[in-house]
Amino acid sequence: MSFESLWGDLAPVGRQAGGGYFRQPFGSAEREAVAWFVEAAQARGLAVTGDGFGNLRATWQAGSGPAVLTGSHLDSVLDGGAYDGPLGVASALAAIDMLRDRGFSPSRPISVAVFVEEEGSRFPTACLGSRLATGAVDLDRAATIRDADGVSVLDAMADAGLDPSAGSDLLNEVGCFVELHVEQGRTLVHRDAAIGVAECIWPHGRWRFDFTGEANHAGATAMADRRDPMLSYAMTALAANKQARLADLSRATFGRVEVTPNGTNAIPSRVTGWLDARSASEEVLAQMVAAITAQAADRAGRDGTAVAVTPESVSAAVDFDTGLAARIAGPHGWPVIGSQAGHDAGILQQAGIATAMLFVRNPTGVSHSPAESAELVDCLAGVGALADTLALLAGDPP
Amino acid sequence: MSFESLWGDLAPVGRQAGGGYFRQPFGSAEREAVAWFVEAAQARGLAVTGDGFGNLRATWQAGSGPAVLTGSHLDSVLDGGAYDGPLGVASALAAIDMLRDRGFSPSRPISVAVFVEEEGSRFPTACLGSRLATGAVDLDRAATIRDADGVSVLDAMADAGLDPSAGSDLLNEVGCFVELHVEQGRTLVHRDAAIGVAECIWPHGRWRFDFTGEANHAGATAMADRRDPMLSYAMTALAANKQARLADLSRATFGRVEVTPNGTNAIPSRVTGWLDARSASEEVLAQMVAAITAQAADRAGRDGTAVAVTPESVSAAVDFDTGLAARIAGPHGWPVIGSQAGHDAGILQQAGIATAMLFVRNPTGVSHSPAESAELVDCLAGVGALADTLALLAGDPP
Repeated sequence: MSFESLWGDLAPVGRQAGGGYFRQPFGSAEREAVAWFVEAAQARGLAVTGDGFGNLRATWQAGSGPAVLTGSHLDSVLDGGAYDGPLGVASALAAIDMLRDRGFSPSRPISVAVFVEEEGSRFPTACLGSRLATGAVDLDRAATIRDADGVSVLDAMADAGLDPSAGSDLLNEVGCFVELHVEQGRTLVHRDAAIGVAECIWPHGRWRFDFTGEANHAGATAMADRRDPMLSYAMTALAANKQARLADLSRATFGRVEVTPNGTNAIPSRVTGWLDARSASEEVLAQMVAAITAQAADRAGRDGTAVAVTPESVSAAVDFDTGLAARIAGPHGWPVIGSQAGHDAGILQQAGIATAMLFVRNPTGVSHSPAESAELVDCLAGVGALADTLALLAGDPP
Repeated sequence: MSFESLWGDLAPVGRQAGGGYFRQPFGSAEREAVAWFVEAAQARGLAVTGDGFGNLRATWQAGSGPAVLTGSHLDSVLDGGAYDGPLGVASALAAIDMLRDRGFSPSRPISVAVFVEEEGSRFPTACLGSRLATGAVDLDRAATIRDADGVSVLDAMADAGLDPSAGSDLLNEVGCFVELHVEQGRTLVHRDAAIGVAECIWPHGRWRFDFTGEANHAGATAMADRRDPMLSYAMTALAANKQARLADLSRATFGRVEVTPNGTNAIPSRVTGWLDARSASEEVLAQMVAAITAQAADRAGRDGTAVAVTPESVSAAVDFDTGLAARIAGPHGWPVIGSQAGHDAGILQQAGIATAMLFVRNPTGVSHSPAESAELVDCLAGVGALADTLALLAGDPP
């Protein structure tokens, strides 16, 4: 009952007419989702604290020592699904309810985190909240990270009433982190399992490709006289697809493009496309991005355009804590799988916090889309799995 | 002096920080340009009248019979140049000054027109003002023409204080039309001539290509499991370029694209691209668009996506009045050339008004760009050419 009630209250927040969600950091829908979290946490007697960046923690004060942290994020991509992020937050609150119903008495604090700007839907860096909290992105670097309107992330935080210079106490107060998340693929479907444990996150990143040419009239300019950056971009988008298919265990996508001036009867002066690329190994990823970049430069040369490639956010491979994953998965026989998507859990692992992830089965594997889904029975299995895991980690020392 | 003063007053209106212009119909910059026109016309004692669609005419009341019409438009594409449209309006006012300085006495009225929404930068139909004024687009059809925010052109006109149901008296009151325009190509450069006369406008149009696929996570979705409409779009943009190069005297451009959701880490659910296509003959144009459509459908089939092609605005070939062009060009030896761009002049010719166009040399041929230009000496030659032409047409019957 507890999970369904929490989920039902959150469901309308940021939902668009077409069924997709948009909860952009510091926008009204995301702030409403945050208010939902604070209210739900306080109703449970959890102590809600925030850091200078807007990351929140709701803590069940108990025992002593560093906290066992769970939770996830509440922001979404443009036209995203209901589960990516919110499932981990709602499941964490419901798992605490379940532990209390069981009469469990923690030997250390249990905290539920909500990290800000996980998706990078507004600022061009994913997991910005956890990167700032762990120091992976410092204030000098943050001052240069701007949204499409030129607003820096620090100014956006100040506008939301935050004080980024106050920093974060996350690293000092947390002992380990377990993030529950909907799977964004079909590995658990193939393994016939409702729950899985992640062992790694693929190395991945975003590269901005700026193609520049010469704006001109689409009708009056002879084909031979053009320097059209749309052609260079189009060939590069196709090259990315081809290189990812040729590479082993890799993904490459151009899902975002901006055109200047973007007029029907104007040859563009500029086309900017963003490459999202991921591979099972850093070596393969680097080779793939280099091959795509080389094809872009070759085509630009033939089109009379120029291309500049800027890495905006590149994340190394993350291996989660092997011992922790085995302790969590072992007793239940949950499969141990990889993740192709980045998560705040990866940032915390890299900051030296022992981290694990629980995945909940996604029947279609679709994510970042209104069609993203999970069966209720699997969500409830996820709450139970998280409660068991928190009990394991916050119980008496083994 | 007169042209330079008029031009200097208009230059700052709608100019962006980068030097390009944006005067979108019924937006503040375009309304400011219209106010400049009304003030300049009234300062010359011209009678300013408007129709129900916002098309304006400033008339030198003289003699009797239908008016000789000149003028052009004041709206611009996104990030356009200073000359496309405004040159024809400022030159018309300056030509009237010149005729008066010469002591010319017209035997019929001379009117300067400003047509609204020539570029189609807001609504997906170019030359909308002249199409409405001549009945080429009727009110029923206009009610279905909407901007990106869903506002119909009729509502936009009503919001600007106009009454579209009042219609237009243009066809009744005008005998012939001469539009002066900056050339949007380099034919006059090659012909070493400051002034040319247009004999035709190529058939041309805009086709919307809607590619639909399946939104999904850019990292977690295996390459083989994708239905990515960006790939179908990219191949189609390249196909358009190739088909135009293969066809005789043709142009094809994808200069505008919109992506849903347009997120870096999301495979798009939809990519919409607009094809601008033009050819010297209607047969070649139809064959080229059919070939591009076939390649789009073929690629969509291989990508697991779908494509729908919608003609948004297709203009037949226009042959200007041959006798009129010869009468205007003959005495001066001005070259008679073609136009690959659409103009209000083409709409009026198709409505049965004898129409001609004067082109002013463009050194680079660049248009629809901040780099669009014309030398002052050529602009002044244009004013003189227009004054001579108006004197010819509004003088005593030959």
